[in-house]
Amino acid sequence: MVFTVKTSRKIELLDITGQVQAHLERMVRESGITRGLCTVFVPHTTAAVTINESADPSVRTDIVSALKRMVPDDIPYRHMEGNSPAHIQSTLVGASETLLVEEGRLVLGTWQGVFFCEFDGPRTRKVRLSLLGRVP
Amino acid sequence: MVFTVKTSRKIELLDITGQVQAHLERMVRESGITRGLCTVFVPHTTAAVTINESADPSVRTDIVSALKRMVPDDIPYRHMEGNSPAHIQSTLVGASETLLVEEGRLVLGTWQGVFFCEFDGPRTRKVRLSLLGRVP
Amino acid sequence: MVFTVKTSRKIELLDITGQVQAHLERMVRESGITRGLCTVFVPHTTAAVTINESADPSVRTDIVSALKRMVPDDIPYRHMEGNSPAHIQSTLVGASETLLVEEGRLVLGTWQGVFFCEFDGPRTRKVRLSLLGRVP
Repeated sequence: MVFTVKTSRKIELLDITGQVQAHLERMVRESGITRGLCTVFVPHTTAAVTINESADPSVRTDIVSALKRMVPDDIPYRHMEGNSPAHIQSTLVGASETLLVEEGRLVLGTWQGVFFCEFDGPRTRKVRLSLLGRVP
Repeated sequence: MVFTVKTSRKIELLDITGQVQAHLERMVRESGITRGLCTVFVPHTTAAVTINESADPSVRTDIVSALKRMVPDDIPYRHMEGNSPAHIQSTLVGASETLLVEEGRLVLGTWQGVFFCEFDGPRTRKVRLSLLGRVP
Repeated sequence: MVFTVKTSRKIELLDITGQVQAHLERMVRESGITRGLCTVFVPHTTAAVTINESADPSVRTDIVSALKRMVPDDIPYRHMEGNSPAHIQSTLVGASETLLVEEGRLVLGTWQGVFFCEFDGPRTRKVRLSLLGRVP
């Protein structure tokens, strides 16, 4: 299953927990699987997916600032498209997350949400989901 | 399946390989699955899980020092709870690891262990496990 | 399933997309599974696996430079084998990637490839693969 995300800044974290849960529910209905693993996969090399706090948006701001500081724009890079920091940030955060599913829902901690990480936006991006059922 | 970890420091890596293996064996007995994937998921936004060397504890110390250096405490953050570095370190290391299971046991390299990463302790934390069987 | 990778430098990213795809095709033939998840697992503590751009090799060079800069060689470490940066880089990038499989093939974005990350080479290394089928 695939859904689309529209980002509006060069670098930002977008809370996609609701979209992942909604698409998961559709996969649960279609497959009958209510327990298992849901893999969230980002098919882009200048974006990523992470799990972090969804309550306070300033956490996202701090994560963005830290990733900018760790991978600065103003040092020389070999890749000539000018988006090397985005590729590096993508590898640091990672292209996939594997989530537990119970009773047809994501098993997340109290403060956890799923975030699409844009590092070279604004763009229209894709998020892929796959549900695998636990053998009873 | 869930188990509890008690951390004793602000930042530390705890070797949980034995606990993961013990709970995996219980899931193997209950499910009959002996081959597949075991996902280790940390339901916290200021902790993480990683795989690294279990033989020499100084490797853990060096990982902790590097994560502190990369995400310093003494720069301004927006999130007012004072634990922004812990959230950032959680995203850098990641909330889950997916491990291979064969003959009912984790398939780890000679030097590999599974580590719970505490970034905002000391606390009592949870670790969630899920076993999915390979279709024969 | 296991295959071998020979690295030729201290730090480098090797494109293993073709090898992963070839071994996946063999697992697909043997198992009959054509949809599901393929986990790529590196059983080493000074190596990792990532997904990033395969078109322009300079992206790999920039990732290597960034990881060296973020985890410098010339600061004091406790682990006496001299390869602490490699252990830290391994935890930052991660020991596994979970990929989606459809119609017996990896589902990768246009620019994505799978890369073995050597941080303490040159060495002969192993890569493990596991295929789990989606319940229809």
